[in-house]
Amino acid sequence: MSLSFVNGRYIAKKEAKISIEDRGFNFADGVYELVKFSNNTLLNFEHHLKRLENSLLSIEIEFPFTNKISLQIIINNLIKLNAFEDGYVYIQITRGTAKRDHKFPKNTKCNIVISIFPEKKNKNLLKGIKIKVLPDLRWNRCDIKSISLLPNVLGKEKANKLGVYEIWQKKKNSEITEGTTSNSFIVNVNNEIQTHPKNNNILGGVTRNLIIELARKNNFVVKEKAFTIKEAYSCQEAFLTSTTVGILPVLSIDDTEISSGKPGKITKKLISIFQKFQRKQYL
Amino acid sequence: MSLSFVNGRYIAKKEAKISIEDRGFNFADGVYELVKFSNNTLLNFEHHLKRLENSLLSIEIEFPFTNKISLQIIINNLIKLNAFEDGYVYIQITRGTAKRDHKFPKNTKCNIVISIFPEKKNKNLLKGIKIKVLPDLRWNRCDIKSISLLPNVLGKEKANKLGVYEIWQKKKNSEITEGTTSNSFIVNVNNEIQTHPKNNNILGGVTRNLIIELARKNNFVVKEKAFTIKEAYSCQEAFLTSTTVGILPVLSIDDTEISSGKPGKITKKLISIFQKFQRKQYL
Repeated sequence: MSLSFVNGRYIAKKEAKISIEDRGFNFADGVYELVKFSNNTLLNFEHHLKRLENSLLSIEIEFPFTNKISLQIIINNLIKLNAFEDGYVYIQITRGTAKRDHKFPKNTKCNIVISIFPEKKNKNLLKGIKIKVLPDLRWNRCDIKSISLLPNVLGKEKANKLGVYEIWQKKKNSEITEGTTSNSFIVNVNNEIQTHPKNNNILGGVTRNLIIELARKNNFVVKEKAFTIKEAYSCQEAFLTSTTVGILPVLSIDDTEISSGKPGKITKKLISIFQKFQRKQYL
Repeated sequence: MSLSFVNGRYIAKKEAKISIEDRGFNFADGVYELVKFSNNTLLNFEHHLKRLENSLLSIEIEFPFTNKISLQIIINNLIKLNAFEDGYVYIQITRGTAKRDHKFPKNTKCNIVISIFPEKKNKNLLKGIKIKVLPDLRWNRCDIKSISLLPNVLGKEKANKLGVYEIWQKKKNSEITEGTTSNSFIVNVNNEIQTHPKNNNILGGVTRNLIIELARKNNFVVKEKAFTIKEAYSCQEAFLTSTTVGILPVLSIDDTEISSGKPGKITKKLISIFQKFQRKQYL
């Protein structure tokens, strides 16, 4: 039985419920965070916490825990109670329960839901995945990790129907922003690692930021500048990053084969550097 | 005590709950509809039903009722059980409960929530309201009446903080799309009633469509073409429409006074025509 934390109580996930007047349910008025844990250790927790604080701030919800230690205690309890060592913590915070009205309710307490999922190990993904490019239909504040995720859901389902792992989203000017659940990277013709800069058009992924930091420490040149579809088609290597999957090599984009259909050298090097970095946190 | 319908059962609204793994709660993966009723009679129900069917179709959720009569029976039961004659029916349908994963789950049943709210009568609004114009940050499928409403919530709260009733949203080319919970109309310098055409940038409001139909029947010229902020500032009259409020005269836009700060002649005429049309349905 899997347990979740809901507003102060630990409840079987299957039984755990929220009011039909929760503003997350009615309005997508909330934010979330997904944190990986390995060997019972939260990975890059400080980064996720910082982003959670920023997301809450962006939509004017007060940080609902006494301090970050109290959030960490809840999460550690859940990990212990659920008895698997590797997985993901899902934290969702909404503006709370109130009579349906668009404007912010007064004197409402947030609703907090925290759940744990076991790690889905899929080593096949590391061999490389396929991408299709479609228009980016999302709103103008993709930097907020909100639960207003319908466009991402529709995008990911489209990937599923097209038989690819992910959709890379393009703006009208043909620049790639990011995937529906991941950030997009290429190694360009100048051998630079290139990815969209952090702004309102992408979510500043924790793994994205770590990869950039680690790549620079290892003397790779990283260019934070949007690349076009054309540049993607003619790149040397491509990969995507996310908390859930880490780094995955991209072997084709819209049926254009990338790096001869095999994971590229730089991509493989980054995977190795990143795995080492992650392991260091729990060994 | 107010009762709601949740997946086949009538439950006190305050006690009514939904799974924390509902896809509406996690992903805003659902749609909704709001229908007005007066004297126990649903107003313009066929139009709302048609739109609900379209919204469901757009995000590939099957219409979850045996037929439209069975939905109407549930709603009529709720109206009777709640014992007020005038109010709103809120219908929310999500893709159902499933382990969190962006792509559509298989073999999942929708979650259905239907609630009733009494009418908030506020005759002061009919005297006219104020508008501010802000950038339209929403996604590219505003034609779907989805619960992915965070941008609308943030917009409406901004209106609240600025001391106005509504925000009119403008595109980069300075064209007005619509409000956060209503459609935008002006009477332009040529005495034509003008509003944004139905496309992916606005929600085709039921009241919007009825007003256009009624106006044309009453020999007004209606032009479905986007107007710019500049055209809004220099219009003869302005008003907004929604299921909740009907028609409201707009007396100022960004501190520019409209129709000498009084409800315009055409606006008042349309209010009278619309009220008569609504009354005919239950008298």
